[in-house]
Amino acid sequence: MAKPKDSGVYLGIDLGGTNVQIGVVTDGGEVLSRAKRKTGAEEGRDAILDRIVDGTNEACESAGVTLDEIGAVGMGAPGPVDPNTGVVLEAVNLRWLDEPIADLLGRKLGKPVFLDNDVNVAVYGEWKQGAGRGARNLMGAWIGTGVGGGLILNGELYYGHYLTAGELGHMILLPDNPPGVRSVEHNCSRTAMCHRVRQLVEAGRDSVVPDLVDGKLNKIKSKTIAEAYSRNDELVIEVVHDAANRLGTMLGGLVTLLSLEKIVLGGGLTEAIGGPWVEQVRGAVHRVAFPAICRNVEVVASLLEDNAGVVGAAFIAIERAGKA
Amino acid sequence: MAKPKDSGVYLGIDLGGTNVQIGVVTDGGEVLSRAKRKTGAEEGRDAILDRIVDGTNEACESAGVTLDEIGAVGMGAPGPVDPNTGVVLEAVNLRWLDEPIADLLGRKLGKPVFLDNDVNVAVYGEWKQGAGRGARNLMGAWIGTGVGGGLILNGELYYGHYLTAGELGHMILLPDNPPGVRSVEHNCSRTAMCHRVRQLVEAGRDSVVPDLVDGKLNKIKSKTIAEAYSRNDELVIEVVHDAANRLGTMLGGLVTLLSLEKIVLGGGLTEAIGGPWVEQVRGAVHRVAFPAICRNVEVVASLLEDNAGVVGAAFIAIERAGKA
Repeated sequence: MAKPKDSGVYLGIDLGGTNVQIGVVTDGGEVLSRAKRKTGAEEGRDAILDRIVDGTNEACESAGVTLDEIGAVGMGAPGPVDPNTGVVLEAVNLRWLDEPIADLLGRKLGKPVFLDNDVNVAVYGEWKQGAGRGARNLMGAWIGTGVGGGLILNGELYYGHYLTAGELGHMILLPDNPPGVRSVEHNCSRTAMCHRVRQLVEAGRDSVVPDLVDGKLNKIKSKTIAEAYSRNDELVIEVVHDAANRLGTMLGGLVTLLSLEKIVLGGGLTEAIGGPWVEQVRGAVHRVAFPAICRNVEVVASLLEDNAGVVGAAFIAIERAGKA
Repeated sequence: MAKPKDSGVYLGIDLGGTNVQIGVVTDGGEVLSRAKRKTGAEEGRDAILDRIVDGTNEACESAGVTLDEIGAVGMGAPGPVDPNTGVVLEAVNLRWLDEPIADLLGRKLGKPVFLDNDVNVAVYGEWKQGAGRGARNLMGAWIGTGVGGGLILNGELYYGHYLTAGELGHMILLPDNPPGVRSVEHNCSRTAMCHRVRQLVEAGRDSVVPDLVDGKLNKIKSKTIAEAYSRNDELVIEVVHDAANRLGTMLGGLVTLLSLEKIVLGGGLTEAIGGPWVEQVRGAVHRVAFPAICRNVEVVASLLEDNAGVVGAAFIAIERAGKA
């Protein structure tokens, strides 16, 4: 797809523990091209950054733009990030601690790089160009391997005192449970659901899951869960609904506390199951939100899906480059 | 106490279900006088407002100021309030629904009246003049008959989309419990603690509480709990610590989500027990807050205590009259 005339183009980078997604995005939100690289965390920081540079070259070429034409670069990285200094404070799966990634990558690309937390970036993308458009008080909940969150409060990304806001997955869901099994992530992530399915199958419960994974119960993925769910597998429906109800109860409590207008659900598990997952979570949110007026909160699925990260990162760059 | 020269004076009104507190407050935060009236909810709206007017006259007289010298009037009222229109949306214990209280009282006093939720007002007072001074991201948790909350985010009172933000007591604490016993208020309020103490005493547990209330277990108050606690009553210590741990776990989760700098604990139960209550809640917050840097969150007791409402209301008036 060619670059639209008179339109600025930006690079959005979505850095994950396994893959890096790189996109050339217009300031109208159009994704002109995408490139993907393995993160390869085990090879260390400089190798990761070199692969990102390689991917940006491919993405620019596919979009028919030169790096010179790129206005600025935005990047989402896992873990707590200081958006002001561009330092990744801690990314366990990348083995990074206090790495000045925006500076390092900016020097390699010869462009300003603006950094933020990966889930913040995806929620920002949905807010600017997706399911969250127009809302002033919104929470994004991303459900996949883990559970992440991001907040738009009073019409801007909310960071909090230590710049770590949004860590939904680490909130305590079941205070009477011992550590390790009481957080939102330990109960509502895809990982938690797979673990529970496996436990129940091994305890003798009937399910289509063993057939779907050729008996390899350590190979259950979001798609496996979604497939079993769509085949009306009783066990998987029970596990998914339990997770949705607990997540929705937590989110409903947060609607009560923060008087939110909208919740956007994203992440691999949300994309895989889709509508029924969103409906279950929505039901639980609406059952517990207080006062009654808060039950008007909208609970919707991500619109950008797998593009939320690159679009959000590009829009972070657009906003901050404009301010800089 | 005489009015300091060249200093503005304001009226702060703290309207509760049982009592109304009225204070003349300087713009330096000094409470020059206080008056108190019974709310008398059963006599209806106009009688309540007339008693408030009567109380303001007494408070002005005690402070040696005339109503003419009052810059503006601020008031905290229970339940959700629209701070822009000055309407109490719903106050169950006052039997009010959509009552334009700021207008009605403003006409009676011939002064602009600015209205807000009672816990918001108390938290605002602590933030401007008490234990919350200087913090930009703070939560107040008020524990008494019920549990209320208020949020200062990015250096201002946070209202949210439906203007109802801060309803900590109505958040779900135990999602697997049935409705009616799963909210923060149902588990951590003074009412919940009294109920639990009574249950355990009636089940035959040993405690000093029956002696303290002459066997009338429906007469347990915050002071009773505090007295039994200070006498090392095992049962009461257990009940108080359970409530503190559960409240602290919820608050720690909110520190995780909102990356808060400070939590201020207030309300009748906090005032009655004091230090040991704050310490227990603080311990639970620090055990669960994530990431590690968030464990620097300060958890402190209200400084203004019973004056938080009138000081906060006066400062709401100062701020909004200044903007108006």
